[in-house]
Amino acid sequence: MSVRITALKARDIRFPTSDHLDGSDAMHTDPDYSAAYVVLETDRVGLEGHGLTFTIGRGNELCVAACEALARLVVGRTLESITKDFAGFWRALTSDSQLRWVGPEKGVIHLATAAVINATWDLYAKSRGVPLWKLLVDLSPEEFVSAIDFRYLSDVLTRDQALEILRANEPTKAAREAQMRAEGYPAYTTSAGWLGYSDEKIRKLCREGIAEGWRHFKIKVGADLSDDLRRAAVVREAIGPERFLMFDANQRWDVGEAIANMKELARFDPWWIEEPTSPDDVLGHAAIAKAIAPIGVATGEQCQNRVVFKQLLQANAIRFCQIDSCRLGGVNEVLAVLLLARRFGVPVCPHAGGVGLCEYVNHLIMVDFIRIAPTLENRVAEFVSHLHEHFEHPAQVRKGHYLVPTAPGYGITMKAASLEAYEFPSGRVWRERHARRLAAR
Amino acid sequence: MSVRITALKARDIRFPTSDHLDGSDAMHTDPDYSAAYVVLETDRVGLEGHGLTFTIGRGNELCVAACEALARLVVGRTLESITKDFAGFWRALTSDSQLRWVGPEKGVIHLATAAVINATWDLYAKSRGVPLWKLLVDLSPEEFVSAIDFRYLSDVLTRDQALEILRANEPTKAAREAQMRAEGYPAYTTSAGWLGYSDEKIRKLCREGIAEGWRHFKIKVGADLSDDLRRAAVVREAIGPERFLMFDANQRWDVGEAIANMKELARFDPWWIEEPTSPDDVLGHAAIAKAIAPIGVATGEQCQNRVVFKQLLQANAIRFCQIDSCRLGGVNEVLAVLLLARRFGVPVCPHAGGVGLCEYVNHLIMVDFIRIAPTLENRVAEFVSHLHEHFEHPAQVRKGHYLVPTAPGYGITMKAASLEAYEFPSGRVWRERHARRLAAR
Repeated sequence: MSVRITALKARDIRFPTSDHLDGSDAMHTDPDYSAAYVVLETDRVGLEGHGLTFTIGRGNELCVAACEALARLVVGRTLESITKDFAGFWRALTSDSQLRWVGPEKGVIHLATAAVINATWDLYAKSRGVPLWKLLVDLSPEEFVSAIDFRYLSDVLTRDQALEILRANEPTKAAREAQMRAEGYPAYTTSAGWLGYSDEKIRKLCREGIAEGWRHFKIKVGADLSDDLRRAAVVREAIGPERFLMFDANQRWDVGEAIANMKELARFDPWWIEEPTSPDDVLGHAAIAKAIAPIGVATGEQCQNRVVFKQLLQANAIRFCQIDSCRLGGVNEVLAVLLLARRFGVPVCPHAGGVGLCEYVNHLIMVDFIRIAPTLENRVAEFVSHLHEHFEHPAQVRKGHYLVPTAPGYGITMKAASLEAYEFPSGRVWRERHARRLAAR
Repeated sequence: MSVRITALKARDIRFPTSDHLDGSDAMHTDPDYSAAYVVLETDRVGLEGHGLTFTIGRGNELCVAACEALARLVVGRTLESITKDFAGFWRALTSDSQLRWVGPEKGVIHLATAAVINATWDLYAKSRGVPLWKLLVDLSPEEFVSAIDFRYLSDVLTRDQALEILRANEPTKAAREAQMRAEGYPAYTTSAGWLGYSDEKIRKLCREGIAEGWRHFKIKVGADLSDDLRRAAVVREAIGPERFLMFDANQRWDVGEAIANMKELARFDPWWIEEPTSPDDVLGHAAIAKAIAPIGVATGEQCQNRVVFKQLLQANAIRFCQIDSCRLGGVNEVLAVLLLARRFGVPVCPHAGGVGLCEYVNHLIMVDFIRIAPTLENRVAEFVSHLHEHFEHPAQVRKGHYLVPTAPGYGITMKAASLEAYEFPSGRVWRERHARRLAAR
């Protein structure tokens, strides 16, 4: 019954989202939501693992090449040899004696690690015929922590402390699983708040959002303060005083600027300010957090690894921990950060603004609630409403809640027709665009 | 007289240094010192800019591809349009609206940025017919700071504060330039201390080093404490009590481990411990620094950018700032970190263990001493004695001092024969190795 990985194929998939400014923000003005898409082929007929890492266009080819560079560490391995020491496998990928120089554990090589690691977990769950979240929920505490590399974490989180967290939640796990199946997990939407949308479009999207049951609304800020103030007023008026408003500055500000601008924007009663400055600036986030309390600081979509999250938590720099399923090196490192956040009592509100991220996050929030942080207080997961049609089993949201995934695997398998049409630059969509551009000259 | 960049060529150059364990350490056990080598071609006959980024083998192809991804931001530009707003050019490369997602400012894309930026400075200096250090020393303070992007630094270093540092040093600049021309800049050697060398070889290299005038000796630690203690004893005995001994753990330890192990290694009176833990762990370094004082903590060769250096300085985490000419995004960002370190009163002791790094560092230390930090106290630049034969103008060291570079440019131009022989995988050296391996089967 053993399964052997016989090949790793990586594809460059891009969607021309910049045509309509979907996903535009103060730093990323013309994103083409993209994926370095990995398929692990096996010697068992019909069984494959699928994973992706998310990028926004140019540079996706670098992640594809990095996935290929990791192939030698994966191809030929049996799934069993990986899963019986998943932390060891993760460390083999992140600590290759030569490849680590071009990271370590950050940037292109770490994004690629996420695609490969996530494909491996997808394969694992599919081989068992269960959704990933359910696989993780049903592992014994010892199996669960055996997937985590505690290197560089032991000053704040040891294996024993992780086990303690898991064991404390065991008796009540089943009740929370039932709750998730019945109610789902609370979500928020960024769909109304991209830069580049007109006020009218923003109002319309807010109205629609309220009708659909959303209670949290996030808008992009940071390009221009007066424009931010105007758009914040539009949204606050549209959603009323009781719903939650969040801001996202996408790293546009220096520390002093962030503090000054948030003093202005405070009048719209924001719940959080996301990415107020450089994602690398732990101490800067701590200074901002102190200055603008009780408004919370949120960050994480570009936090490179567990070591940076560890410090954000140690420094009281964040009140919301926004893990990213691809920026971190896949499921193993996400689990480490969920446990870290739990240890510091900080809620995890995952980032999902990108193609495939909602599909991933849908599994991770179930694991967090059922096994690690048994509360929904101050917790919401991002949901963005585009590009789901390309997935075989897209994330399902109802009345502002993510529903429990039911298909086997990690939910990221794309439709074959989408992969073909959007492959860059050879797919139909990109060939047609190229032809139109030539014709327009 | 304007010069236009007409093409960017990137080549994958690798040296099989793993054959003899040169450069081996606890994390990088089999490095093949490598370079993603960039040539900027221009419309002026005979004028080219050369730059490289350093890696240790696998993954070098990713940096080459990333250099190619940056080409669209460089090719077609005039040198004048770049140098009149060099900070703007630097930001254009580091903040491309799509490419920045796969960084930002870290890992593969930032290493590639260094190669391209350094090639641009090489072109600039060659177009003026002067060595890079001399170009930088003779810029007006205003021109000098116009090369620096102060984004994310303004909470501790503004343009005005940078100008103040430079202006204070203007009156005494010429004397320090004369001093450098006469005496050179103090260096230390790592050549004796790689893991994998026998005790006998270590003793021999120490004796040779002393005879050549070296006063600082660095050894690798971190793989095994008892082995570290033995090798430290060998070196301390060989160099005597008056010379300086430094340790380099290459990130092998967790925070608690680093503190415990340094309590043991303290008996050999080390001057510094380098990279005791994750390069991303600012707060970890600060905790170690506090616990092991007066032994100094040094780090930087894998510090991804100026934002991390800013925090290491803010947190009193380092007593020695080890900038890397390729890990940082080239000359512009190095200048920012030199100014930051000056502001905090921390000496800069550059990392140079890699191909081409000594050649780069040779220029940067001159700029640091002449313009920014006008003292040699507690300052030494690393020197490693291999692979210099591949450069047209290799770094010159005499009696433990780097001599002032005299050839125009940034000193990194490789000999054409070396580029051809070591190109991966098509060069002669790699083809022959491949053939030998096939024959040995």
